[in-house]
Amino acid sequence: MSFSLSTAGEPLYQLSYKTKTIIKPGKLGLLLNDADPLNANFTISKIDSSKHDSTWEPVWGEVKSIRNNYNELTVTLYQKSTNRSILIRFRLFNDGLGFRYEFPKQANLQHMVVKEEVTEFALAGDHKTFWIPGDYETNEYVYSTSKLSEISPTIRSASADEISTRAVIPDGVQTPLMMKTADGLYINIHEAALVNYSAMHLVLNKQNLTLTSHLVPDARGNKAYLQTPFSTPWRTILVSDKAADILTSKTILNLNEPSKIETTDWIKPTKYVGIWWEMHVGTGSWNYSDESNLKLDGTDWSKLKPNGRHAANTTNTKRYIDFAAQHGFDGVLVEGWNVGWEDWFGQWKEEVFDFTTPYPDFDVKALHQYAASKNVKLIMHHETSGSVTNYERRMDAAFTFMKENGYDAVKTGYVGRIIPRGEFHDGQWMVNHFNRVAARTAQYKIMLDAHEPVRPTGLHRTYPNWLASEAARGNEFNAWSVGNPPEHETILPFTRLMGGPMDYTPGIFEIKMDYYVAQRPFNNQSPNGNQVHTTLAKQLALYVTMYSPLQMAADLPEAYEKRMDAFQFIKDVAVDWDDTQILEAEPGDYITIARKAKNKNEWFIGSISDENKRTSSASLNFLDSKKKYVATLYMDAPTAHWKDNPMAYEIKSFIVDSTSTLKLPIAPGGGAAISLKEANAADLKKFKRYK
Amino acid sequence: MSFSLSTAGEPLYQLSYKTKTIIKPGKLGLLLNDADPLNANFTISKIDSSKHDSTWEPVWGEVKSIRNNYNELTVTLYQKSTNRSILIRFRLFNDGLGFRYEFPKQANLQHMVVKEEVTEFALAGDHKTFWIPGDYETNEYVYSTSKLSEISPTIRSASADEISTRAVIPDGVQTPLMMKTADGLYINIHEAALVNYSAMHLVLNKQNLTLTSHLVPDARGNKAYLQTPFSTPWRTILVSDKAADILTSKTILNLNEPSKIETTDWIKPTKYVGIWWEMHVGTGSWNYSDESNLKLDGTDWSKLKPNGRHAANTTNTKRYIDFAAQHGFDGVLVEGWNVGWEDWFGQWKEEVFDFTTPYPDFDVKALHQYAASKNVKLIMHHETSGSVTNYERRMDAAFTFMKENGYDAVKTGYVGRIIPRGEFHDGQWMVNHFNRVAARTAQYKIMLDAHEPVRPTGLHRTYPNWLASEAARGNEFNAWSVGNPPEHETILPFTRLMGGPMDYTPGIFEIKMDYYVAQRPFNNQSPNGNQVHTTLAKQLALYVTMYSPLQMAADLPEAYEKRMDAFQFIKDVAVDWDDTQILEAEPGDYITIARKAKNKNEWFIGSISDENKRTSSASLNFLDSKKKYVATLYMDAPTAHWKDNPMAYEIKSFIVDSTSTLKLPIAPGGGAAISLKEANAADLKKFKRYK
Repeated sequence: MSFSLSTAGEPLYQLSYKTKTIIKPGKLGLLLNDADPLNANFTISKIDSSKHDSTWEPVWGEVKSIRNNYNELTVTLYQKSTNRSILIRFRLFNDGLGFRYEFPKQANLQHMVVKEEVTEFALAGDHKTFWIPGDYETNEYVYSTSKLSEISPTIRSASADEISTRAVIPDGVQTPLMMKTADGLYINIHEAALVNYSAMHLVLNKQNLTLTSHLVPDARGNKAYLQTPFSTPWRTILVSDKAADILTSKTILNLNEPSKIETTDWIKPTKYVGIWWEMHVGTGSWNYSDESNLKLDGTDWSKLKPNGRHAANTTNTKRYIDFAAQHGFDGVLVEGWNVGWEDWFGQWKEEVFDFTTPYPDFDVKALHQYAASKNVKLIMHHETSGSVTNYERRMDAAFTFMKENGYDAVKTGYVGRIIPRGEFHDGQWMVNHFNRVAARTAQYKIMLDAHEPVRPTGLHRTYPNWLASEAARGNEFNAWSVGNPPEHETILPFTRLMGGPMDYTPGIFEIKMDYYVAQRPFNNQSPNGNQVHTTLAKQLALYVTMYSPLQMAADLPEAYEKRMDAFQFIKDVAVDWDDTQILEAEPGDYITIARKAKNKNEWFIGSISDENKRTSSASLNFLDSKKKYVATLYMDAPTAHWKDNPMAYEIKSFIVDSTSTLKLPIAPGGGAAISLKEANAADLKKFKRYK
Repeated sequence: MSFSLSTAGEPLYQLSYKTKTIIKPGKLGLLLNDADPLNANFTISKIDSSKHDSTWEPVWGEVKSIRNNYNELTVTLYQKSTNRSILIRFRLFNDGLGFRYEFPKQANLQHMVVKEEVTEFALAGDHKTFWIPGDYETNEYVYSTSKLSEISPTIRSASADEISTRAVIPDGVQTPLMMKTADGLYINIHEAALVNYSAMHLVLNKQNLTLTSHLVPDARGNKAYLQTPFSTPWRTILVSDKAADILTSKTILNLNEPSKIETTDWIKPTKYVGIWWEMHVGTGSWNYSDESNLKLDGTDWSKLKPNGRHAANTTNTKRYIDFAAQHGFDGVLVEGWNVGWEDWFGQWKEEVFDFTTPYPDFDVKALHQYAASKNVKLIMHHETSGSVTNYERRMDAAFTFMKENGYDAVKTGYVGRIIPRGEFHDGQWMVNHFNRVAARTAQYKIMLDAHEPVRPTGLHRTYPNWLASEAARGNEFNAWSVGNPPEHETILPFTRLMGGPMDYTPGIFEIKMDYYVAQRPFNNQSPNGNQVHTTLAKQLALYVTMYSPLQMAADLPEAYEKRMDAFQFIKDVAVDWDDTQILEAEPGDYITIARKAKNKNEWFIGSISDENKRTSSASLNFLDSKKKYVATLYMDAPTAHWKDNPMAYEIKSFIVDSTSTLKLPIAPGGGAAISLKEANAADLKKFKRYK
């Protein structure tokens, strides 16, 4: 990379990879309200450079240790007309560049209101781009794949209409933005360490193929309120000629601050089941009664007429606890346990939930004891309905209630328009809220899984109790909408997951929703013909390809009980890892990943395809060359197809070693999952050698 | 009053007093977002009427018991086209009318977003009007007196420029709005029980002299978010041919709900001194250091360089505690005790104060012990700087900190623009906040004094721990601005005080500010020639004329120590009353009030004038006819004048009885204060009979 000033004193940077230009000279700077802009009239007053090389161990992760190795260039810029200085700090890694603006404390720069950040990403070609529309409110879109110049975020596809709360930016796209050049380079643009600032979206100038930062505004149209000293989040550009290098990049994590949590022994990667999918498929409900227009205060919840299908009842929860205990799951999520669901959605209403009052049929104390006796943890659910002021007022009471009742993980939700009214999900105020919840839960030793937050930027390094987020279009859309196309999960690791783990909720075994529709206790919803766009084997593979230390087995226990052979993979698969190998990857097409379980000589492989049939090849050369392993292959049956025959699978076991290379036939929209465990003598007799 | 429907099905009401029309037929109703309006196409489906007569005792007040006596008319209106019903409930009292809209729970009216309320007050003449501009943010204006048609709220007087945060409504005025008709009727328009709704301002149509409601919007321009069942605040119109009847009206209180606080023995009317006026006059500072641009987090407050004039230090606070104990005051307010004042104002910054961290020179524990040993209560100060989300997050910790350290009263402040950004001081969200603080402090048994809130609407009946509010232009403006004209305090009881007690902070003895300017330890502020527009005797009279159960002796101890004879009135005067008699009153000109101390046979009289000299007459026929009293008269000296000779006073004592009538010469901008105590034998010998 190189830095320069234009004749107008505008900061410029450019980036190349080997011999190829990645970013043409692009401008840097910010515009302020009621103050001169900070994007021109600069002189260079100082340049510092340094090298850094260290290694650190994450509390949990895809690998055991992470190397942080970069060359740093810090340019101090002086604006004589206003007597102000700013710094731009660049960190150049082997796999990409990070840079940020820094505003030292100084007499003439104390408080600022940012009108806009005008960072340019001047791309060198009309790349193939995997994108979702820029939107202040949501990231739950289906990805589009097009040339950069063909981006048209004003599309109103069915997949967009299914999102309840949107605020689309014309010509805008979201980060992480994944691109591929005509000559085979992979480029990823995102940000790291989004703290006390608005999320950066990007707006395209189609004439020159330049993307410019577009920050999310507040109710008054302002982008951020800053006080010096301050540093913006890092803007990141990852580049490689191998797609796999994008997936293994730790640059975004490295640009985040180390953990702020001193003792982390209470943070545990978690596999869980929960009372959740049954509401999505309509056999159960979040709400306890079918009465409408109830107020949080002034309703005698004990006197409501139950609707008979409230899922979060004591009996059903015990059933899930039993199931979790029997099959070795750590936790049971229960949604719909607390009063307010009769009138929770879409009213921009402040007092929706109190987070401490259970429905009459949900016995918190009894379930705490029952779960404890089975060595299972209940996972709390806090849906805010977007009413964040209400949540902030009640958070301490809610977290205290959790700890008193044995909960040490919470799934939060932010469905709907935000209160404070006028704020957006991705603006500075909400960014601060999401980070505040991470810090506050950490104080209570509570693990966090945020749904509908701003997309992650690696802050799980700083708050390792923040196990996962949703922040993209999850598996749930498949239950009640046009769903996610088969390629969806081949794109997410290159986009959404670049910022951090996703609670995608894989593991759907009953793939055609009509199965559940037929069971609905009340005929108030007609069969809809929806299905998950997957084969069953692919659902297993997602536990490996969609990295998260928090993984759900999302389907209903009965779905698993009918297919215990396939369920064995979900029971076996790890949620924390010593090592990760990307065996093959192409965004939008396929991904094959092998991971070594934490502190165990066990490996798991996941391989997925888009809508196309293919044969994956998995060389096992990462295995301990001195050992033999049992490879159990959970594969699409030869007749499997995501649409017409999604639940056809085969399970085979073989003896393999580090010289083996597995050939994995993948059905259209399919996948394969493999467990690799050290073989004992009986195994060696029982199973054939793979060939 | 009468109610009718227009041919278009519009609800109409009118009001007359004796033979005179007060309100000509005016329309009623509301406009909604995304729903048909609720102001026309109605038919009357039901009319109910009833009578009510009861008596209740306030926890504290101007009188011992209050009669609530009205005729009620409830009109149920049906809108066939939308199948919706609303009610309008009218309560007609001897001194005025209250009415409100009620929205019963019903299938077709569940949630509403109010676009505007369109209640009309169609006045019958171009009345003399005492008004301040309609403003979403502030009520700290000087009152203008003009014909209704001459209202011009877009004025930019010096008095307006001194208000930091304004959002003026074109052609708008605020309530309580006081008017006088050409034929001598007094009319007051306000509202009662402002709960979960925006404050009502009024916009004038000069053509037909009709005022129409104008609710304060939120960040999105919406006026209120409602869920049925819901009732709006009461709109009140008080009418009398005697100005005194306006001041004695209890209609606004009667239209509020009874106390929500079950045990109220901890609520105590309070007379207090405090570390406050010295900051206004510039001899002390709120901030501990003169460093600028400090952040709440990340500043080591113990290492700041003190500026040497920080008023809230331990030594100074002990001095005030000593003074309070010596002279029988209940409390000592201390402002500037907590960190953050170096960077508190005007930045629209979220993290300003934490409400629990004292400056290094303020020893909370030691002062708690010291105050307790002297039987004095410290009064907490919570300036929010308008950052209400921050305050709400920290409120519980702050109240807990207070109780741990012996504080049971808090003065809150809301200077500056509100966070959530885009909300206004007088909008629904802030109204809910103010009421929430009242409820929350009550849970902690904390008494509340809110500065810069929405103007009161009688909610101190419901939350009797809410002793007082500022919510108007207080005495403080006299210290550093063009100040308040001498008529100001003759208008406030007819306007601001109609809604509830005001913490006006009377008792300024050093009336010319140059006295303090000369003492300023640092010559960083030049002499400014400001003064309070009052005589000293008038400052005493305000303790009676400006009703509040929370009264400050606002000046510095040294100001009182030089004039202990006059100070005796402040020491003697009660802050809670069994009875109140308005002896004479004319808005903008003069007020003379007599009040009987709670559970004591002592009376206190206050009489004030505007800029004109006058002689007040006070018949003492309210005294116990069987007893003799010592009347101590604190009066303007014959040469006194608010401008040139404000501190000239005389004190005389006489023997009086119920047949006496006092003649009180009042200087221009002056006043008189009288205490009446039962005479003992020695008094009868010592003092002459008044004649």
